[in-house]
Amino acid sequence: MNLIILKENLKRGLDIVERITGKNLTLPILNNVLISVKKNLLKLSTTDLEVGINYWTLTKTEKEGKITVPAKLILSLVNSLPNKKITLEEKDQVLNINCDNYNVKIKGQSPDDFPIIPKTETTDFIEINSIPFYKGISQVVEFSSLNQTKPEISGIYFNLQKNALKIVATDSFRLAEKTLYFKDGMDIKKETSFIIPQRTARELINITSEREDKLKMYLSSSQVLFELSFPEGNQPQIQLVSRLIEGKYPNYQEIIPQKYETQVVVSRDELISQIKTTSLFSGKTNEIKINVNVNKNKMELFAQTPEIGENKSEILVKAEGKNTETSFNFKFLLDGLTNIKSDEVIFGINGIEGPAILKPVGDTSYLYVVMPIKGN
Amino acid sequence: MNLIILKENLKRGLDIVERITGKNLTLPILNNVLISVKKNLLKLSTTDLEVGINYWTLTKTEKEGKITVPAKLILSLVNSLPNKKITLEEKDQVLNINCDNYNVKIKGQSPDDFPIIPKTETTDFIEINSIPFYKGISQVVEFSSLNQTKPEISGIYFNLQKNALKIVATDSFRLAEKTLYFKDGMDIKKETSFIIPQRTARELINITSEREDKLKMYLSSSQVLFELSFPEGNQPQIQLVSRLIEGKYPNYQEIIPQKYETQVVVSRDELISQIKTTSLFSGKTNEIKINVNVNKNKMELFAQTPEIGENKSEILVKAEGKNTETSFNFKFLLDGLTNIKSDEVIFGINGIEGPAILKPVGDTSYLYVVMPIKGN
Repeated sequence: MNLIILKENLKRGLDIVERITGKNLTLPILNNVLISVKKNLLKLSTTDLEVGINYWTLTKTEKEGKITVPAKLILSLVNSLPNKKITLEEKDQVLNINCDNYNVKIKGQSPDDFPIIPKTETTDFIEINSIPFYKGISQVVEFSSLNQTKPEISGIYFNLQKNALKIVATDSFRLAEKTLYFKDGMDIKKETSFIIPQRTARELINITSEREDKLKMYLSSSQVLFELSFPEGNQPQIQLVSRLIEGKYPNYQEIIPQKYETQVVVSRDELISQIKTTSLFSGKTNEIKINVNVNKNKMELFAQTPEIGENKSEILVKAEGKNTETSFNFKFLLDGLTNIKSDEVIFGINGIEGPAILKPVGDTSYLYVVMPIKGN
Repeated sequence: MNLIILKENLKRGLDIVERITGKNLTLPILNNVLISVKKNLLKLSTTDLEVGINYWTLTKTEKEGKITVPAKLILSLVNSLPNKKITLEEKDQVLNINCDNYNVKIKGQSPDDFPIIPKTETTDFIEINSIPFYKGISQVVEFSSLNQTKPEISGIYFNLQKNALKIVATDSFRLAEKTLYFKDGMDIKKETSFIIPQRTARELINITSEREDKLKMYLSSSQVLFELSFPEGNQPQIQLVSRLIEGKYPNYQEIIPQKYETQVVVSRDELISQIKTTSLFSGKTNEIKINVNVNKNKMELFAQTPEIGENKSEILVKAEGKNTETSFNFKFLLDGLTNIKSDEVIFGINGIEGPAILKPVGDTSYLYVVMPIKGN
């Protein structure tokens, strides 16, 4: 292997593939990036056996070949080199890197030991705009469950219909649903659902937030492949392959309340700011009380820890329905509110037992359900 | 106690005094700020028994009095309040804070339990410009020893002469000396030296970097007090009182080399950048080799870890004296170089046993001495 590449191009690729490598002690080769060169393309590959990423970039190839080297080391190295041409040459499983006045040798491992990143099992794909896609995933990705005893809710649920894609996550305390509407309809045979690991969703955000583009999605029974092509032509530039999580996602629609005993329309920023102040006194339970006085169009926030102190503050709101006094985990409220982008939010409360809802005013594409802390 | 104050004024004071409070479990009152009001001045005080800080700000006082409350809590609270007038009222050792729609109560502790922050024992002081003073301390403060078995080098050494103030720190592996020259001379009777804790030095940087001003220094046998006045008039605005470290500072002048076997003049940025790249291969010892070829005006950096790889890189320099091959801890070199502000630096090397020196070209006010790693 022998090639010349611009620092910037090598750095961009390594930045993307390095993220899923770690410090794997049982299988150290997973810490490596597989560098392979064919014709005028350099391919970088990494995998953690759950997700795999391939990245291609143009190069001036003198000799084809391949090698694997520690991903974090070569990224740190490339970051520290001057912004010039870099020569990469493999010799006896050592990668020689020359740039300006620098002569670097990195000890490699045989590419034969590197796990195979599976290829697509299907040629059918659908295309999605990358920008709304990554923004949508970002609004739900943090809410999947960390509890591995229920693997199906540890991932992000995708439900693909002809006219919409729903992206959902829940940890059973709260749930977020984002809907991407397709104006022109999707060329799919039937409604399809699948669950991807949270890690995959994070990497998807990372690769699709790079630029506005058509993202191809190839779905098969046990894996999904996402692909972005080079801006010109059909040659893949980035591929992300992930296993799917087995199991049946809970019938989450059932817990989304359609009616609210108390409905409040409130300024998002004002509510966030009052929750933050009140939370200083919420103690270990993170509990803050929300009282709504419908006649006075007033919402009151309250928290107290006897040995520390208390805060009471109020906001003028537009309120309907019944007066209520309900407690919430302030962190869960903030998590929902910071993912809502509108100036005003609808806060629907269903007493101390029923699920509450937060959603933007004038936008049906996002909703966030949160369970109250039950009264004593 | 009852007063009205602008949020911004209260926040600025709390920002400064809160830093030395912590989570002290044995003496919880040290986590508190003492708030006391007299005439139209609010005074905030904190101490960790080594350093104490007083901060005064103007207020509209309704009733004089005092209370202590947890410093980090009240700072977080004030940060989260709207940018408006705040009312502080003490009642039965509870601090009531009202601002806009917020009604906060913070449980206080009796001011009688708060340690007394010592006053000045002398009325003699000298005045120093705050800006060069804090910049000078910043260039040495990180190099004092963490080893508490030699308390005298755990602090920062000040040597005050008629025409200059020297500020020194060392951990016995490296040493930094900053000299502030006084154009007009200082009104002092005799040369004076003292050692302040590193913590004190850090807080001094924090208070003196606020604005250009005359800093008053009151020195007595066991403590030092630094004071900044309100921009108009002589009323103190910030006071920092610190105990001094007992003991005799080592005669550090002896180890500053006056001659170098090898002298190199080199671009600071280029050297930093090559050290960073080379350090990736320095392994656990942090060791990088520096070879100087005087005839070729060339400096070569080299590091190697057999199981990882190596880097060799070179810089064109202006070299004099003998060829050399000396090893250094790369972190120590970077620490010195990042505190030198000139484009070119002088690197004086005295073989594998003698202390080396780094200093700016064309500026005698700073020097950094570093011991090589002895050859095997």
